[in-house]
Amino acid sequence: MSAATPPASPKQVYIGTFIHPTAPNELAYLHDTAVFVDGTTGRIVAIEPATARNEVLQRLGWRVEEIQISDISTGTTEPGGKRFFFPGLIDTHIHASQYPNVGIFGKSTLLDWLDKYTFPLEASLGKDLAKARRVYSRVVRKTLSHGTTAAAYFATTDVEATKVLADICLSAGQRALVGRVCMDEARICPAWYRDESAVDSIEKTRAVVDYLRDRDPRGDLVRPIVTPRFAPSCTPAAMRELGEMARAEGLAVQTHVSENKGECDLVAEMFPEETKDGKGYVGVYDAFGLLGERTILAHAIHLSEQEVKTVADTRSGVSHCPCSNTAITSGAARVRWLLDRGVDVGLGTDVSGGYSPSVLEAARQASLVSRHVAMGLEGDEKERAKLSVEEVLWLATRGGAKLVGLEGRVGGFEVGMEWDALLVDLGGVGEEGEDVGEDGNVDVFGWESWEECVAKWLFNGDDRNLRKVWVRGRLVHERV
Amino acid sequence: MSAATPPASPKQVYIGTFIHPTAPNELAYLHDTAVFVDGTTGRIVAIEPATARNEVLQRLGWRVEEIQISDISTGTTEPGGKRFFFPGLIDTHIHASQYPNVGIFGKSTLLDWLDKYTFPLEASLGKDLAKARRVYSRVVRKTLSHGTTAAAYFATTDVEATKVLADICLSAGQRALVGRVCMDEARICPAWYRDESAVDSIEKTRAVVDYLRDRDPRGDLVRPIVTPRFAPSCTPAAMRELGEMARAEGLAVQTHVSENKGECDLVAEMFPEETKDGKGYVGVYDAFGLLGERTILAHAIHLSEQEVKTVADTRSGVSHCPCSNTAITSGAARVRWLLDRGVDVGLGTDVSGGYSPSVLEAARQASLVSRHVAMGLEGDEKERAKLSVEEVLWLATRGGAKLVGLEGRVGGFEVGMEWDALLVDLGGVGEEGEDVGEDGNVDVFGWESWEECVAKWLFNGDDRNLRKVWVRGRLVHERV
Repeated sequence: MSAATPPASPKQVYIGTFIHPTAPNELAYLHDTAVFVDGTTGRIVAIEPATARNEVLQRLGWRVEEIQISDISTGTTEPGGKRFFFPGLIDTHIHASQYPNVGIFGKSTLLDWLDKYTFPLEASLGKDLAKARRVYSRVVRKTLSHGTTAAAYFATTDVEATKVLADICLSAGQRALVGRVCMDEARICPAWYRDESAVDSIEKTRAVVDYLRDRDPRGDLVRPIVTPRFAPSCTPAAMRELGEMARAEGLAVQTHVSENKGECDLVAEMFPEETKDGKGYVGVYDAFGLLGERTILAHAIHLSEQEVKTVADTRSGVSHCPCSNTAITSGAARVRWLLDRGVDVGLGTDVSGGYSPSVLEAARQASLVSRHVAMGLEGDEKERAKLSVEEVLWLATRGGAKLVGLEGRVGGFEVGMEWDALLVDLGGVGEEGEDVGEDGNVDVFGWESWEECVAKWLFNGDDRNLRKVWVRGRLVHERV
Repeated sequence: MSAATPPASPKQVYIGTFIHPTAPNELAYLHDTAVFVDGTTGRIVAIEPATARNEVLQRLGWRVEEIQISDISTGTTEPGGKRFFFPGLIDTHIHASQYPNVGIFGKSTLLDWLDKYTFPLEASLGKDLAKARRVYSRVVRKTLSHGTTAAAYFATTDVEATKVLADICLSAGQRALVGRVCMDEARICPAWYRDESAVDSIEKTRAVVDYLRDRDPRGDLVRPIVTPRFAPSCTPAAMRELGEMARAEGLAVQTHVSENKGECDLVAEMFPEETKDGKGYVGVYDAFGLLGERTILAHAIHLSEQEVKTVADTRSGVSHCPCSNTAITSGAARVRWLLDRGVDVGLGTDVSGGYSPSVLEAARQASLVSRHVAMGLEGDEKERAKLSVEEVLWLATRGGAKLVGLEGRVGGFEVGMEWDALLVDLGGVGEEGEDVGEDGNVDVFGWESWEECVAKWLFNGDDRNLRKVWVRGRLVHERV
């Protein structure tokens, strides 16, 4: 993949098996199907049986010689091997600037992890734009290769480095919410890595918002997002102003909430008024006007019933980050409990609290963490706490789409939705146990059901199983 | 890799960085080092600074023109990229026969999972030896590619299919304990998949033991292991006879213990005498003479203090299987608690209760599961419960070696030990964020310490990072 991918061809036809979530616990399997995509808008214009292909072309007024066909129904290897199209994956919480630190967290927990590993790396990118370019290029390339077609990024406090991230997303063709990180509170943020004042926080946020609107006026690919790091790192003045800016301009908001018990105690101490009477950590963001249907709250592990009601009532979304929550021993988020209370949930890799840039890994760990939650429960509740294969894949696609403001546009295959998609290729096993086709870790023997193949992909799949990745009808990654 | 790999060259010299565990929480880093291996015995005969290479050759009486050199200190790509030798990984619990089911477990827990997914697949291999050959060839090939240089395998109840597994291990050059599965209890085991009687269990075990001793008389690579599946699937008569056979002939033993609470209740009900007075599930194996320093007990999640004392007193080892325990919601084993009580612990993939054939994945999940254990504790205990990078890699190598009867022979780099080793290759990141060298998921930017590189390998590494794998000085896998 080059950094700048070529434009989409205007008339595209995809033929084969399409698997996509149609309800929170349901995947639909469309076999022998043809999907027609208008490359100029990125939209799906027709979904029909493959046998009706010629009639559809006629109806659309597309001539055979001008279409670009991707037919995966032929040429699949036997025995075993499975290919299908799947919606692009959505990462609702990722710190692009922290990518070089993935896997490096030692025995730390949140607050010491920030000081020891995170702030020094983030600060270095603002001082060295070549380093920022190297790191951000790698993140975008890497996440695309893992099928992330849209991401909600935290950058750093630095304006110029944040612009670099946005430019790279635009050039590579990845959808992104790009947030300059606001942090102006002297108690948590070191003098060498914070905004000078609330005014400074707002002005720098304004600079990035204006830049992004100039670069992508309709926000087709890249949009700004207001990003107070988390309550302890922001002054009340900064949070209040950011809340007003978001509301006045319809901007998305992202921050962290209730990740770690020590952090929750700190917030209660720093914000006694906003958290009192059970309003809790969530109450701080509520007080400063930062909650709403465009808000993404990462983690939300230790919420009370009253807090989760505030989240649900304000239509704020929760980014569940299982890899991170386990790695830095933050806790096990109760996803079923959140869903039961009407909260919208998506998945986040939370690089580099999370060790992996892969949303598929986040989905896998969401399944596993839900089982740890289940271990602490009894009877029906225990069974219900477990998230199914279908559910974690819903969270990774449709759930994420809702959080990043793309509900109904991406996350599934429907006429009118946009072609953000993956070509998934699962390898087969020959008669002597040899590789047939793709050489990744998913082994299809040939007798498995399609449902079993999807489970195998979830639990052993990696970037090797993604042959191609498209965003808005444009090929943005190809594994050759 | 072909199924039958070529013989080892007799005089081998490895040059570069060697990383290996020297204590349960310590890795040693040997840079600019040369390791000399006698390929006829597989033994390490000298470890010296690379600069002393010629003197050592002279001392050994090896002529330069007859040695085979693997020098990884040259040709590494800049920027980033790291190569090092690491001891082979040891899987202390894997059901070779269940490999086709990895990732397929739905919402099941142990006992229904056996009925629904496991027994039908296992039974099918005995009826179709071509299928057995295909599955077992794949398992051995796959686990070698993930760096498993020694494995304790459960096969199935079928004698002929179990011989097939042993033959494949011998041919491919993987060390293995190969166990025919004993299960003769009608209550748990379906009529279509069990031994006919205790006598039948013993006779069939005898047949496999004799076959393996014939094929590999000194047990250099493949040895038999007495394998009562688990207490509920075996009659007292069968367990007693198996215990006697193991003791009389110095055979290794493997089984499952205390994996699931429902299973523990069932055992208490089926074996009231053996479990009474707090003797518990472990008491059953103790009563039938199945515990001892050659015994591997998989899981050991819900043990009491009295039970763990029995395990420690008998010098039995525990195979910790984190992927499986989480996936089928068995529980979170308290590894620190086991270690504190003097129990020897190794890691098991427990394919296919575990979803991955990779011991590195088991090590990663051991780290993560220890954090879930920590979440339920307070203060110092909480901190201590977390397993470090060094500790889980110890469990994967030296810990496993102890369990499979290879302590002091494999798991580290010392003169007199055997060359079971991996060539690990971590990719770098170029100035524009492009791949440099290896294309896996570990990204080295170049400023990381060696300790950080090892952490990155643990958390994002996969089979792509293993360039070569050796067992007893013989190259058994190569990624070209």
